[in-house]
Amino acid sequence: MAKPPRGRGGPSRRPADPPSAKGLWLYGRHAVEAALANPQRSCHRLLATAEAHGRFGTAAARPGLEVRIVERAEIDRQLGPGAVHQGLALSVAPLPGQDLARSCAPDPGRNLVLMLDQISDPHNVGAILRTAAAFEVRAVVMAERRSAPLGGTVAKAASGALDLIPVVEVVNLARALDALAELGYWRIALDGHAEASIDAAPAVDNLVLVLGAEGEGVRRLVHEHCDFSARLPIAAAMESLNVSVACGIALYALARS
Amino acid sequence: MAKPPRGRGGPSRRPADPPSAKGLWLYGRHAVEAALANPQRSCHRLLATAEAHGRFGTAAARPGLEVRIVERAEIDRQLGPGAVHQGLALSVAPLPGQDLARSCAPDPGRNLVLMLDQISDPHNVGAILRTAAAFEVRAVVMAERRSAPLGGTVAKAASGALDLIPVVEVVNLARALDALAELGYWRIALDGHAEASIDAAPAVDNLVLVLGAEGEGVRRLVHEHCDFSARLPIAAAMESLNVSVACGIALYALARS
Repeated sequence: MAKPPRGRGGPSRRPADPPSAKGLWLYGRHAVEAALANPQRSCHRLLATAEAHGRFGTAAARPGLEVRIVERAEIDRQLGPGAVHQGLALSVAPLPGQDLARSCAPDPGRNLVLMLDQISDPHNVGAILRTAAAFEVRAVVMAERRSAPLGGTVAKAASGALDLIPVVEVVNLARALDALAELGYWRIALDGHAEASIDAAPAVDNLVLVLGAEGEGVRRLVHEHCDFSARLPIAAAMESLNVSVACGIALYALARS
Repeated sequence: MAKPPRGRGGPSRRPADPPSAKGLWLYGRHAVEAALANPQRSCHRLLATAEAHGRFGTAAARPGLEVRIVERAEIDRQLGPGAVHQGLALSVAPLPGQDLARSCAPDPGRNLVLMLDQISDPHNVGAILRTAAAFEVRAVVMAERRSAPLGGTVAKAASGALDLIPVVEVVNLARALDALAELGYWRIALDGHAEASIDAAPAVDNLVLVLGAEGEGVRRLVHEHCDFSARLPIAAAMESLNVSVACGIALYALARS
């Protein structure tokens, strides 16, 4: 699979991670740095070019971590073509499962939780995690099935946020929404057909924002477990926004309400 | 080039359009519909599956347009693997060049213009055009060189906005900023190191928002032709946001100021 050159016309692909018998690899400076700094992350082996390793200094020293200084081509071979790895690839274990109640137990002040309903594009999920960390969201809740796998593509697009923000994978989103209500959360579904604008969302301390996939939106059964629906104030000319852009605007609006 | 299956680990590519000796192809329902509805767009040939053509009805009837009902595989072959074309591919000419002064001449009320400085990822440029149309931006200004080419990938990610919003390609961004000042615009550079938050941006009628590439930001020479710098109010844990997410938040904040 050669990387296609740029030009006009023709198609676009946004492939996900290929299956790998060699375990889970993270790559790129921010993703690798954040994984190495995360005490919950088991890190097995770091492949680094001499130049990239030099920028790290002692930050790459971690008990049990095997560090190998290699040529860039060896990292290319490990990851396959096209990964923008910046000279760094880290073999890791998936993060341990996170508990919903423990991750979301409200602190004094504002608590925002984000829920993703069937958002399967790993670039979007990564950008959403990055935005969630930037707005100090407590946790991101998603279903174990039909969500983007939390691999190298998500981690790269998340620019380190995958190792900063708890991601809680649950079996059933509707039940998770009920559990969050018991913890004291209001639940808002983002919905292009809602009457209320996100600006009019209730100014309460504890809020869950639920996002659905582009086109389909939040599924009915999940929607029924929300207290409020809100839309973004956009012109009629456009039906919707990219889901990670919509997430950013909604979190900004809620953080200021 | 086979489409890689999903799975954990491994790399991600976000390829741009391959060079095409066969001209410029747009694909996907929203992109094709918007191009057919745009009187400024020359459309040569529509390839459609019977099912996709049935959904269009007479909307695909346009003087001079050759319509061919084909099997899905023929569209796959035309576009190459991986393009999510939804049964529609349209061969078109590039849009005619847009004049800066004519596209941006202020109307009564609010006028927002967006300028992109070296944003080269076509998925991001497409998502930005989509957001700009949703916030009724007057025009998007970018440099002829070092910007993403306005091909099928941009059009698909823009979800129709490429044929809704004027894109002005200029030789020199700094000179374009001077020309916009002469038209009565204030110019704001989005800058993660700025002291002022975007919430504190001056509430004037005519505003240009300038966005730079992730990492590099707005280049110094372009920055020097702005009146004001503003940052997004994000937590210190994250250095920045995805550029299309940052664009969405900034446009939302400016539209409400």
